Amino acid sequence: MSARVAFQGERGAYSHLAAQALLGPTVEVLPCVDFDEVFASVASGAAERGVVPVENSLAGTIHRVYDLLIRHSLHIVAEHALRVAHCLIAAPGVAIEDVRVVLSHPQALAQCEHRLRALGLTSEVAYDTAGAVKLLAESGRRDAAALASPLAAQVYGMHVLREEMQDHEHNYTRFAVLSREPLTEWPPGDLKVSVALSLKNERGALFKALAVFALRNLDLTKIESRPLPGRTWEYLFYVDFVTDDFANKGQRALGHLEEICGMLKVLGVYPRRV
Amino acid sequence: MSARVAFQGERGAYSHLAAQALLGPTVEVLPCVDFDEVFASVASGAAERGVVPVENSLAGTIHRVYDLLIRHSLHIVAEHALRVAHCLIAAPGVAIEDVRVVLSHPQALAQCEHRLRALGLTSEVAYDTAGAVKLLAESGRRDAAALASPLAAQVYGMHVLREEMQDHEHNYTRFAVLSREPLTEWPPGDLKVSVALSLKNERGALFKALAVFALRNLDLTKIESRPLPGRTWEYLFYVDFVTDDFANKGQRALGHLEEICGMLKVLGVYPRRV
Repeated sequence: MSARVAFQGERGAYSHLAAQALLGPTVEVLPCVDFDEVFASVASGAAERGVVPVENSLAGTIHRVYDLLIRHSLHIVAEHALRVAHCLIAAPGVAIEDVRVVLSHPQALAQCEHRLRALGLTSEVAYDTAGAVKLLAESGRRDAAALASPLAAQVYGMHVLREEMQDHEHNYTRFAVLSREPLTEWPPGDLKVSVALSLKNERGALFKALAVFALRNLDLTKIESRPLPGRTWEYLFYVDFVTDDFANKGQRALGHLEEICGMLKVLGVYPRRV
Repeated sequence: MSARVAFQGERGAYSHLAAQALLGPTVEVLPCVDFDEVFASVASGAAERGVVPVENSLAGTIHRVYDLLIRHSLHIVAEHALRVAHCLIAAPGVAIEDVRVVLSHPQALAQCEHRLRALGLTSEVAYDTAGAVKLLAESGRRDAAALASPLAAQVYGMHVLREEMQDHEHNYTRFAVLSREPLTEWPPGDLKVSVALSLKNERGALFKALAVFALRNLDLTKIESRPLPGRTWEYLFYVDFVTDDFANKGQRALGHLEEICGMLKVLGVYPRRV
């Protein structure tokens, strides 16, 4: 079996950084153009693992990834929180005084808006952060820099001019590791159970569903309603709960939930790290 | 008082379309560069109303807008759900066969990926959808088109080549109308109450907070947890609930919530439309 890890984006993307943090700096990677390709690569065996962002503290939950988690039969087997710290990156020998233009993904540019303005730099949009560094390296431009991870600078032989360019210090992304097979043995300690569920449009249905956890003293670390477009008043919920006794308490909670929910899908059971 | 409406983006943005749907097609508008400027314009009186997106069915909740709702003292006085339908827009006289390149915001490009690929078009990123149409109109380019709202075509004297370019039919954005003053008289029928609240890290705290609604038979239309970055295990929640008796039942529910929550902020009480 290949030990490769699939992720969305160019080499040096924050997902690549997360893959290294989770699986070691020498992990073999399979960069994919979109999340669909990440899921397809893990499902087909082209990659052993996939690393996908689940939520960002500023931009919120990545619904596209949840859609794919629900549609596919992959399993979350680990999680990792990565602090997003954008670097200003240019070609070797370029000084900050030479830089007029900054390339990056619009979200990264927006996250660094105040510092870019203070430096008097003009923004130019690019598809993604690491892609901007790659583009810059290929173009040979010396009046431009990119905003991306320090790994992107390393991958494309570029130079970090400034670290910590983001305006908000607390910007982190939670990543999930995907596998074809679920974990079946867990280390001691807290496990996180991620589920997606739908409830009928009955008054108090959500309260009943949450009673499943409250009655068992199970902590929730995430709950989010998502209206099902086109199905008025029917809701999909994402719930993460924590248990140190999945085999008994966790399984019983899932069984109880099944009685209440229209749809219930366990997305993964994995050691809690966040 | 000015009757102007502030929104983020260029004229012809989806927020502009929402402002027209809410306040009439001849509404005077104040385009702003970012959400901060929208809030500041309403707070200062430069605009009477602000129109901001709160959540999108594919991209999720717009946390930045919630951050500003919590920080400022503006009030939500209305809501509107707008279906996002991207048009392919070019200069008058340009045929679809002439088009090689498509400009738009990365999110719009991603939402139309399959159709763009089927047409054999190359994507080029721009800051926003309506801005791409404006750019195209100014450039005089005849080999390029933009993805944006039909209103953007109208505003910049451009031509709609194709409608409904998005791959997913069900893509809608919920907008909120902001005002300096809260509504104090409500029409008969269902009202929606939007609140942000924080809970102490106590087991069962969320269950107690939700009991406030369940015990009064109040429906929730939105619930979302958001970890407070930097404050481990403390959570912020966004909750929307519905009541046809705000003066009594709604107020009592808020009073009860205050007993349980660390922080409770009412973001608005307004007629339910979604």
